[in-house]
Amino acid sequence: MTGYSLYDILYVDMTIKKQMEQIAKAAKAAGQVLAVTGADQKDKALKAMANALRRGVKKIIKVNALDLKSARVNGLQAGLIDRLRLDEKRVKAMARGLEDIIKLSDPVGEVTKMTRRPNGLQIGRIRIPIGVIGIIYEARPNVTSDAAGLCLKSGNAVILRGGSLAIHSNKAVAGCLRVGLKKAGLPLSCVNLVEDTSRQAVDALLKLDQYIDLIIPRGGESLIRKVTRSSRIPVIKHYKGVCHVYVDEFADLNMAEEICFNSKVQRPGVCNAMETMLVHKDAAARFLPSMVRKFKQAGVEIKGCDQTGCIVKGIKKAKKSDWPTEYLDLILAVKIVGSLDEAVEHIRRHGSSHTETIVTDDYKAGMDFLNKVDSACVFINASTRFSDGGEFGLGAEIGISTDKIHARGPMGLEELTTYKNIVFGSGQIRS
Amino acid sequence: MTGYSLYDILYVDMTIKKQMEQIAKAAKAAGQVLAVTGADQKDKALKAMANALRRGVKKIIKVNALDLKSARVNGLQAGLIDRLRLDEKRVKAMARGLEDIIKLSDPVGEVTKMTRRPNGLQIGRIRIPIGVIGIIYEARPNVTSDAAGLCLKSGNAVILRGGSLAIHSNKAVAGCLRVGLKKAGLPLSCVNLVEDTSRQAVDALLKLDQYIDLIIPRGGESLIRKVTRSSRIPVIKHYKGVCHVYVDEFADLNMAEEICFNSKVQRPGVCNAMETMLVHKDAAARFLPSMVRKFKQAGVEIKGCDQTGCIVKGIKKAKKSDWPTEYLDLILAVKIVGSLDEAVEHIRRHGSSHTETIVTDDYKAGMDFLNKVDSACVFINASTRFSDGGEFGLGAEIGISTDKIHARGPMGLEELTTYKNIVFGSGQIRS
Repeated sequence: MTGYSLYDILYVDMTIKKQMEQIAKAAKAAGQVLAVTGADQKDKALKAMANALRRGVKKIIKVNALDLKSARVNGLQAGLIDRLRLDEKRVKAMARGLEDIIKLSDPVGEVTKMTRRPNGLQIGRIRIPIGVIGIIYEARPNVTSDAAGLCLKSGNAVILRGGSLAIHSNKAVAGCLRVGLKKAGLPLSCVNLVEDTSRQAVDALLKLDQYIDLIIPRGGESLIRKVTRSSRIPVIKHYKGVCHVYVDEFADLNMAEEICFNSKVQRPGVCNAMETMLVHKDAAARFLPSMVRKFKQAGVEIKGCDQTGCIVKGIKKAKKSDWPTEYLDLILAVKIVGSLDEAVEHIRRHGSSHTETIVTDDYKAGMDFLNKVDSACVFINASTRFSDGGEFGLGAEIGISTDKIHARGPMGLEELTTYKNIVFGSGQIRS
Repeated sequence: MTGYSLYDILYVDMTIKKQMEQIAKAAKAAGQVLAVTGADQKDKALKAMANALRRGVKKIIKVNALDLKSARVNGLQAGLIDRLRLDEKRVKAMARGLEDIIKLSDPVGEVTKMTRRPNGLQIGRIRIPIGVIGIIYEARPNVTSDAAGLCLKSGNAVILRGGSLAIHSNKAVAGCLRVGLKKAGLPLSCVNLVEDTSRQAVDALLKLDQYIDLIIPRGGESLIRKVTRSSRIPVIKHYKGVCHVYVDEFADLNMAEEICFNSKVQRPGVCNAMETMLVHKDAAARFLPSMVRKFKQAGVEIKGCDQTGCIVKGIKKAKKSDWPTEYLDLILAVKIVGSLDEAVEHIRRHGSSHTETIVTDDYKAGMDFLNKVDSACVFINASTRFSDGGEFGLGAEIGISTDKIHARGPMGLEELTTYKNIVFGSGQIRS
């Protein structure tokens, strides 16, 4: 960790803006090579990356200790320190993650449409990589290898900009990834780590729309809002996950209890956990007492609307500010609604467009909910926890989008691609 | 054109920011209604809009005269004044344009994917409208009805912000469109015209990412750059069309001559016209003399590289600044390249990612060009002029995208939609 790396020698004395431009330019050139690289070679690189991580495990743990030390000095909370920590098991899991990506099929080159026009032109669409993707994240060093692996397999060059807290770990991990690229004969600039963790560096990156095609920020809402506000490059993101389960008047209440419990309790700290439970007024008296008992036994704190308070005693009263809150914890807001439309309206007003579920045995209610709610994921009779790349069968996930453009919900390899229009002609001209 | 409209009464005394917010909020609510409106009702509105335009033709022409008058006073050039002019024929063409949209099938509701997971969950994707689309354009009043019609059919509310030069015409046209909405029982805020043509109004609109889902700017490069720079909302755009035809070493030279001539001359003022012709060095001596003669006979001014100048005499010398220039005129830059890769490299460096064509009879050259060029449209043996929504079979076109995200090339109704993930369960929970 002492002395100058090649990086320092190359970039010393350059302004931050110039540095970022140089990284982005190199990434663009590497992306053009990667775009026409077959899966065989990309998989070879992934395998070599995984091996390099395994061989580098001791070094990675050693430098991770430096990050952990300064995190402790900076008084970081225990949960965040745990996310930052790398041990042998976690590094090996990162390596396995890269190997898992090998098993996924390469989305690039798929012709998704091809028709013949009356004039004989064959016009179609072929899937291609997006180009250069910037990933802006906080203190989870596993994102470094996960994101790089997914971008590589989908043919995209990646610019990784992790938080300052994980910088030593990220440098070590990225170093291993580049060893893998070299072994497979791919340009090192397919995977780029921005070692400058200043705000200015990010700001400069976000202006480079001539080189970078997409930004995916991963982290807390404030990070993502900052990125969205200053980016000239398209951003795909989710701010937060305020997921709802709506227990309809015609729900199977046993099923509803299982789904609500699973949606809240199975893993409360993630974005696809339920944060608000909406209950139809005609189901409330039958459903809530036993449901709330079950939640309380699991240590879930309930914040209910006034009507909820009338049916079950000993719960906290929900404030207005509870409805749009992502607790990420064993806390649940509960509201009784007069109709399905009121549930839909509540979700529109307070939801985060992530994932909503209706529990019902009524055909019309199910279809109404499905059609009226325009969140990224809308479920009938299933736990919100299924809103996940793995569970969707995507194999892996680069992130979740609650945006309207390009991709929605869990994003896998296909969502890291775009298309071009291709035309096979035989000399056609327009008259 | 005197007195207060309902619009004036509602919005008088509000700050611009508040006004824009009110429009956008109303549009969002209208969009939610439109999203669950069937094609029958949308088509009824389109028909009523067309009828209202036909009935309003005299009024529209009358107020258009006001726009034309101030355009002349402001010294606008003849070409732009012609674009601004509405006569009976043009208004009727706008009405017919709306009726043509009725014939297109409604993209909303199409399930584009549905699979069954091992746990029995049926997971799929359904096409839905994007929501609220902002169109920012200059002085072509026909965009007002074209864009509104396409947004309506695809289930999107639209906010139209045309240039100040066409404001009287746009108000009259938008008035007719709203008559149609009313007749069909749809919310008037499905189609919104921003009557404030100040820069501040646009700036305020571009910050309203909580209401507006997509911005499509249409106009000159400087307008589009301004919009992209200040928008917090995703923007889909094309700055310009610097299209290339590459005449390969193995081209059928008669076909090459036809395609190049058509690409340049058939309609030089549009974005899919060829601006630079690249010729393989081994084809140049056989191809250029007769090709250049043909161009000259058609009044095309040639700006050639040094090598071109050696083969054909009496042409202008191309400057560096010619390569990335969109002439939109009977001017053509010509460059001789040593290889297909040099052509690809030239396109990457100077092109605008719009449309490029290779003319070749060689299989490998065709495939190489197709795979290596990542423009929105890549053709083999066809005129660049086919890069058009109508020619692609999309029926109509809201614009062209040279971006990487969401849509590329000509954008029709499908490109005005997005999707949500839907899950049909039977009580599944995660273990």
